[in-house]
Amino acid sequence: MSLTVVASQAAPLAIDAPRELFEQACSAMLTKTPDGGMLVFPEMHLFADGQPDRARTKAYQQAAEPLDGPRVTWLRQLAAGLGVWLVPGTVCERGPSGELFNTALAIRPDGEVAATYRKIFPWRPLEPFTPGQDFAVFDVPGAGRMGLCICFDSWFPEVSRNLAWLGAETIINVVKTTTPDRPQEMVMARANAIVNQVSFLSVNAAAPVGRGLSAFFGPEGETLAEIGDDAPADMVCEVSTQRVRRARAEGTAGVTRPWAFFHSGDQPVELPAYGGRIDPTRWNRD
Amino acid sequence: MSLTVVASQAAPLAIDAPRELFEQACSAMLTKTPDGGMLVFPEMHLFADGQPDRARTKAYQQAAEPLDGPRVTWLRQLAAGLGVWLVPGTVCERGPSGELFNTALAIRPDGEVAATYRKIFPWRPLEPFTPGQDFAVFDVPGAGRMGLCICFDSWFPEVSRNLAWLGAETIINVVKTTTPDRPQEMVMARANAIVNQVSFLSVNAAAPVGRGLSAFFGPEGETLAEIGDDAPADMVCEVSTQRVRRARAEGTAGVTRPWAFFHSGDQPVELPAYGGRIDPTRWNRD
Repeated sequence: MSLTVVASQAAPLAIDAPRELFEQACSAMLTKTPDGGMLVFPEMHLFADGQPDRARTKAYQQAAEPLDGPRVTWLRQLAAGLGVWLVPGTVCERGPSGELFNTALAIRPDGEVAATYRKIFPWRPLEPFTPGQDFAVFDVPGAGRMGLCICFDSWFPEVSRNLAWLGAETIINVVKTTTPDRPQEMVMARANAIVNQVSFLSVNAAAPVGRGLSAFFGPEGETLAEIGDDAPADMVCEVSTQRVRRARAEGTAGVTRPWAFFHSGDQPVELPAYGGRIDPTRWNRD
Repeated sequence: MSLTVVASQAAPLAIDAPRELFEQACSAMLTKTPDGGMLVFPEMHLFADGQPDRARTKAYQQAAEPLDGPRVTWLRQLAAGLGVWLVPGTVCERGPSGELFNTALAIRPDGEVAATYRKIFPWRPLEPFTPGQDFAVFDVPGAGRMGLCICFDSWFPEVSRNLAWLGAETIINVVKTTTPDRPQEMVMARANAIVNQVSFLSVNAAAPVGRGLSAFFGPEGETLAEIGDDAPADMVCEVSTQRVRRARAEGTAGVTRPWAFFHSGDQPVELPAYGGRIDPTRWNRD
């Protein structure tokens, strides 16, 4: 079983750009990759507020809508019209108490929302968002369980770890990194794949706003697709449940099975940083 | 402030090798690097049981001693005689209930033991050790706080995370990786450095037993020293508190400060995988 995911390393569209621009971009991706079953865009792809992007709080506040507002309704109709899964980057969400969230969403080919995820680690001090609280995974028929994370989340291994623990076999990391630490993020993306034995898709914005360097890593850290510069480009990723399940069953490099570590009778590993523990009875994934 | 650490990518010595072989190796390292203040050896460096090494449970059981036994007493005398810090890889420790532990230790230049650490994640199924329970950090005058971890521990980001949370600025990872997943470990070592903004020293055994590829990464993931193959070699590492503290103060690539993420009033991040949380009041390190 597999799914062809097309990830767009593109510069963000202006907040007030005509909707046709995004619709045309989606259609063009599917014309180029007719078997594409999911389209993925970078963080804040529909929310550029200048050139270069300035991430102004006021512009975000004005653009924010609740998730049942017209923007997401339009995106749902777009996904249904195209008949594909759509991860349109993130949107500025107005929360129930007026909070501003940086929220990723995954929309099904029938136009229903499969998952929403509010970024837990906004990049401070620049981002004005309230941190989210909850991890999000969703099931894609034929392609296993996926998890959502956003940009700076990848600097916290806790995010990928919890997504994998919740069953994610593929993690989609939508990114808008404009700073020179994008090479570090590539290291962490690959490591997040290896330690969790998941596939990890990291799609960044293109120049002149973003630093590019999008990539799709397999569960042993192998590079399955990549864009080596910051130019606009599509990246075609074959998401396979078999790849992850084989790595977990046979081991990374044929030998190492971190998800099968514990034996019956092992004590929990107490983790003082979290006031929690790795509980053997709730951990092994084999 | 800094400390010159000399790490030996060497093949392990046989369990019954004359003690002079190890003493001579230490002396030779200091002859070559006279300002060396700490000597570090790979995991199980004094415990080869054949060629190639077979990690036989019986050989380990026979060699195991409590930490107040003659082997550690000899190592303490050796460190004191040389007047250097000594991390002699790991030893087979016989626990108080007869358990077999894979235990790292750091010995001070006065011959006192600064820290002991029982490997929490023995590489299963090959290793016969009982997992340890506790993280270990220790303070080195002039070189800040260090933490110990052992080989497969590096596949669990929880280990480096907890060492950093306990204040470690440098993590010493002693390794005996004989399998083809050593390149993956290099990715994880670098990522462990970046996400925690620590220096990370990973020293593996040399051929014909180990796969080599030892390296010393700085807190932004930069390569400060490395051995690019599996040949026996010394690696000289300048451990600087200033480097870590500057990265945390000014940010990775001058911009990103993960240890300064939280604001007052932020809610804890609940982590279902651990039944714990990141508590803002106990987290920031700036």
